[in-house]
Amino acid sequence: MTSAAGSPPTGRARLADVAALAGVSVGTASKALNGGGRMRPETRQRVLDAVETLGFRPNQHAQSLHSGRSWTVGLMTTDGIGRFSTPVLLGAEDALGAGKISVLLCDTRGDAIREQHHLRNLTDRRVDGIIVAGRRTDPRPPLTGIDPSIPVVYALAPSTDPADTSVVTDDRGGAHLAVEHLLATGRTRVAHVTGPEHHQAARDRARHAIEHLRGAGLELATGRVHFGEWSEAWGRRAADAVLRTAPDTDAFFCGNDQIARGVADTLRERGRSVPGDVAVVGYDNWDTMALACRPPLTTIDINLAEIGRIAALQLLQAIDAVPEPGVHTVPCRLVVRESS
Amino acid sequence: MTSAAGSPPTGRARLADVAALAGVSVGTASKALNGGGRMRPETRQRVLDAVETLGFRPNQHAQSLHSGRSWTVGLMTTDGIGRFSTPVLLGAEDALGAGKISVLLCDTRGDAIREQHHLRNLTDRRVDGIIVAGRRTDPRPPLTGIDPSIPVVYALAPSTDPADTSVVTDDRGGAHLAVEHLLATGRTRVAHVTGPEHHQAARDRARHAIEHLRGAGLELATGRVHFGEWSEAWGRRAADAVLRTAPDTDAFFCGNDQIARGVADTLRERGRSVPGDVAVVGYDNWDTMALACRPPLTTIDINLAEIGRIAALQLLQAIDAVPEPGVHTVPCRLVVRESS
Repeated sequence: MTSAAGSPPTGRARLADVAALAGVSVGTASKALNGGGRMRPETRQRVLDAVETLGFRPNQHAQSLHSGRSWTVGLMTTDGIGRFSTPVLLGAEDALGAGKISVLLCDTRGDAIREQHHLRNLTDRRVDGIIVAGRRTDPRPPLTGIDPSIPVVYALAPSTDPADTSVVTDDRGGAHLAVEHLLATGRTRVAHVTGPEHHQAARDRARHAIEHLRGAGLELATGRVHFGEWSEAWGRRAADAVLRTAPDTDAFFCGNDQIARGVADTLRERGRSVPGDVAVVGYDNWDTMALACRPPLTTIDINLAEIGRIAALQLLQAIDAVPEPGVHTVPCRLVVRESS
Repeated sequence: MTSAAGSPPTGRARLADVAALAGVSVGTASKALNGGGRMRPETRQRVLDAVETLGFRPNQHAQSLHSGRSWTVGLMTTDGIGRFSTPVLLGAEDALGAGKISVLLCDTRGDAIREQHHLRNLTDRRVDGIIVAGRRTDPRPPLTGIDPSIPVVYALAPSTDPADTSVVTDDRGGAHLAVEHLLATGRTRVAHVTGPEHHQAARDRARHAIEHLRGAGLELATGRVHFGEWSEAWGRRAADAVLRTAPDTDAFFCGNDQIARGVADTLRERGRSVPGDVAVVGYDNWDTMALACRPPLTTIDINLAEIGRIAALQLLQAIDAVPEPGVHTVPCRLVVRESS
């Protein structure tokens, strides 16, 4: 329905057609293509010429039966909405698709029954491996009931089992980059506003920010972390609370870009100049949010696509050779804009 | 590496093992499983019992060679960033994955060479069909060089070829819903701020908004459409321009939620109450944007996941029976929040 009129169907010549044109048996044609068997170079060449002439493409399913590999990888995302897992997934697709490996997409939406359904399907399809991309940085239990010969790599949300291979963001490095930048630009009274305390990302970024401040002989401006929600509304409310408690605060390090944007809005509405009076640094480098912020937001880029890419490379290594168990971290990057 | 210790590997019993346990030939076991051949019910039952006992799962690749179907569908997205194509893709995955069909993900990033690479790969894998999910509503040329026996459905961005099957959003219905809602709540001086004029979504929403206003004997408050960018910054600037030209404007219908949010910010900063003095309606129902808006935004939900779901159903119909060529539209939905 969509091909250019008149062009021949591609890929539909059969191996028998190739064999007939080359004047060999189907068995010989098959051996010539798979590189196996002993035959004269001229014979192999005749088969390859026939392949060229007919535009023959080997049937992947027949090849898979032959090689024991399906050249497919399952990509399970637990995040139906996808702001975090989508870039991870596309980074993995990019690394795998450049070769001959295809990506089977499965969205579990965090539902155990859907996860089992997809796992069964992936096992039936003899996938060469599976990447599990999470939504949060909190560790998750490993997949259960899976054939132990199928390698699995966890991306963003690590497995709780240290024998598994996981690829995660470097929240320690990210928090250090943010605080380091604020100190380097002369700020000394830094407040920290972030998401819910039961999220590991919020706890980790807070802990490492405090650690880095202490290394410079400083404490948080309000003496505590402001845990709350990953929302602009929380950023706006928390900024007011910080300004009441510690009016001389000269910087906010925020746990994500939405909070940072809320903080920046409140600062402007209370007559504080950003970055003149107060610097604001976000986290995630969610471009829509960071660029719409007034002023555009300095933030930490967590390299989600790179997490997906590294997870794919780890999976390829586990398929082809030996896995590298443990938690691999992908460095963050400071993106300086006008809020600091 | 991730299975519960001690549980047996699943799915790795061979058909020969099943046949041996059932005391039949491999050929008979195969016929029993595929429902073909004539045999005594007891024989078939013995094979099924052996399948159960051994936890045998048929090899999908062997099944595909047998049925001529791969039970896979290619999902090509042209949108690396994915705010629009991701929900479409997940809607399609949801509709397909519920059955036994798996989804091969291909991200072309709008690059013709990547598109050809993926198309070749999908053809080699004998996919049963392909869904092409676009980023914008502008029509796109059909896939080229594809085997005409593989059905294709275009989602969000329709094919320029009317003989193809496309599933798109109903921009006419969406614009009517927005204007109808503003008229029903007593607004009569409606301004329209939207994205670039070279985007079909911007042109369509504007044209149908004007059409609906005229049906009620009204014209746009400023006498023209404010084309610009899909950004908050443009919404803020355009709102100022509208207030200068037509200070009695009592409603803004905006081409997307980012513009609407920028408009709402400017109105608040100019001392206009939303919705007291001026109503604001957005478009897309991008929840992060709509909920962070002050006040939370009334908007048009374009049902992206439903577009993906319908595209999947259209594809299944084209695979199993006959395609329904033409452009199928998916209705929008008005979501009323506090800005109107």
